[in-house]
Amino acid sequence: MLKGVEMLGIFPEMGDIVRTLIPEAAPKSGNPPVYPQRKNMKAISILVVAAATIGFSGAASAQFAKPEDAIKYRKNALFVMQQHYARIGAMVSGRAPFDAKVAADNAAIAESMSRLPFAAFGEGTDKGDTKALPEIWKEQAKFKAAAEKMQGEMSKLAAAAKTGNLDSIKMAFQSTSGSCKACHDDFRGK
Amino acid sequence: MLKGVEMLGIFPEMGDIVRTLIPEAAPKSGNPPVYPQRKNMKAISILVVAAATIGFSGAASAQFAKPEDAIKYRKNALFVMQQHYARIGAMVSGRAPFDAKVAADNAAIAESMSRLPFAAFGEGTDKGDTKALPEIWKEQAKFKAAAEKMQGEMSKLAAAAKTGNLDSIKMAFQSTSGSCKACHDDFRGK
Repeated sequence: MLKGVEMLGIFPEMGDIVRTLIPEAAPKSGNPPVYPQRKNMKAISILVVAAATIGFSGAASAQFAKPEDAIKYRKNALFVMQQHYARIGAMVSGRAPFDAKVAADNAAIAESMSRLPFAAFGEGTDKGDTKALPEIWKEQAKFKAAAEKMQGEMSKLAAAAKTGNLDSIKMAFQSTSGSCKACHDDFRGK
Repeated sequence: MLKGVEMLGIFPEMGDIVRTLIPEAAPKSGNPPVYPQRKNMKAISILVVAAATIGFSGAASAQFAKPEDAIKYRKNALFVMQQHYARIGAMVSGRAPFDAKVAADNAAIAESMSRLPFAAFGEGTDKGDTKALPEIWKEQAKFKAAAEKMQGEMSKLAAAAKTGNLDSIKMAFQSTSGSCKACHDDFRGK
């Protein structure tokens, strides 16, 4: 069981900051009360102030509290996209039964997810737990074009999946996979 | 630079399977050709067959190749959601300047993301790199209700953000945070 302002577990990295700033915010032992509204509200006020005190220089990445968050974010968004994309792949291969609704749902999610990762390649996110190559920042126009190519192909795949025509989905899936590969070839290390 | 069928880096975990099944699929040294279409298509066919050969028993989790993928997926989706949610929090706190469009965009993405994680708590995903408590599987109706509560609050937040009224956003943000906490209290270990 989480206790007291361990609700900050929602933003785990903020727990220490809050506990440092406000000692009484430290979790106490004993059973937690059943979500007392006032206490929640106070904790949430603390939380959001704490969130805002974490700065991160670099305009392009200002939306992330720290470079590690940006790196984690883009990897996580790409993994979620890939999971949905792989389900379409299984159907395209004929090994999973084709279900038009499942294909359309997964393609729609993959398309949505394809919009997210590229805001997270801001300044200062070239180092750390990442396979991102320096070319991303050296050849920004080329990287942007590669990202947009993939997004465009993913949109075509989502449109094809909506029609429910498996042959169209196969064609679009192959083109999309080519755009994934092209970007990985040029911009991702091993 | 990635080489040959290292395009399988798109699905890193499949590389070994493909290399085992099809030795000539192993990457060769030397410069890669500039995305030869035919080779791409062959590699993609291999890829999708490989994807489908990875089985995972458990109907609820059949969409994931293995339990670890389900665990990673739900954590990644929740992290992406949290990053967008935190941006609204910064505005609600008054520390980040309020921008109605930024709030609406982030709330819409957070709402979309809130739909994803809960399909990934299938059978066999209770062990591994996860803080998920056994209560998730012991009290499934309660867990489902908690998930739906959060999704409902997130939808209300997205609706509030669309109006551009900061007070409404604040109220909805607080309720949503309460639903996050409630679910973490009951279903997530430290």
